[in-house]
Amino acid sequence: MKALLLIAHGSRREASNQEVRELAQRMAGHAGSGFDMVVPAFLELAQPGIGEGVAQCVRQGAREIQVVPYFLSAGRHVAQDIPEELARAAAEHPQARISLSPYLGTHPEIAALLLGLAGKRMPAPDAA
Amino acid sequence: MKALLLIAHGSRREASNQEVRELAQRMAGHAGSGFDMVVPAFLELAQPGIGEGVAQCVRQGAREIQVVPYFLSAGRHVAQDIPEELARAAAEHPQARISLSPYLGTHPEIAALLLGLAGKRMPAPDAA
Repeated sequence: MKALLLIAHGSRREASNQEVRELAQRMAGHAGSGFDMVVPAFLELAQPGIGEGVAQCVRQGAREIQVVPYFLSAGRHVAQDIPEELARAAAEHPQARISLSPYLGTHPEIAALLLGLAGKRMPAPDAA
Repeated sequence: MKALLLIAHGSRREASNQEVRELAQRMAGHAGSGFDMVVPAFLELAQPGIGEGVAQCVRQGAREIQVVPYFLSAGRHVAQDIPEELARAAAEHPQARISLSPYLGTHPEIAALLLGLAGKRMPAPDAA
């Protein structure tokens, strides 16, 4: 079984963590995603953490775990913290193969998505 | 003239800020974007700030400024700080019409982009 582990930063604001969990559910619902499960995990401030997220995937039968960082820039979290946590998890679960994908901010379509959003308007701030 | 103002959080890590500036350049280069300029600005930790970003757009002749928050979740920054800064900027530049778009994390295509990234692999963390 193949799992996608979506790693977000995590927030003190629970609604933000919930947005990530709902995003993972939408990803799981995508036809032809190629993954048997999509599990959300958080670097800090929310549960499950990365190690527990990997353990969840393994408990549900995953032997391939593809990790996608839900981050916009390559700071210390993406470059160092996430790989370190994954290396620890890999050592604890030698039966699973863990692979890391590039973070969201690298996707070439981000520019087009932002231009698409620019066509949508919320109430003007000067009208508030 | 129409400007798109791309607002990112800003980072102590200058390379992250530079990623945002390069993204704004790529957006400006998109054929048929409908904008005469794309200007990056930062909520904190980097320059230009939001007020200065709006001022740059106005100096370059923009009378319509569409603001897109480069944020993944609707925390205090998106819900409160950015609208407040824009309201101040709008008061200083009554000749410009400033509109606010939804933040990046709301885009329905994000799920598909993340699934696309899941097909790309970086060196496995357990191979490091």
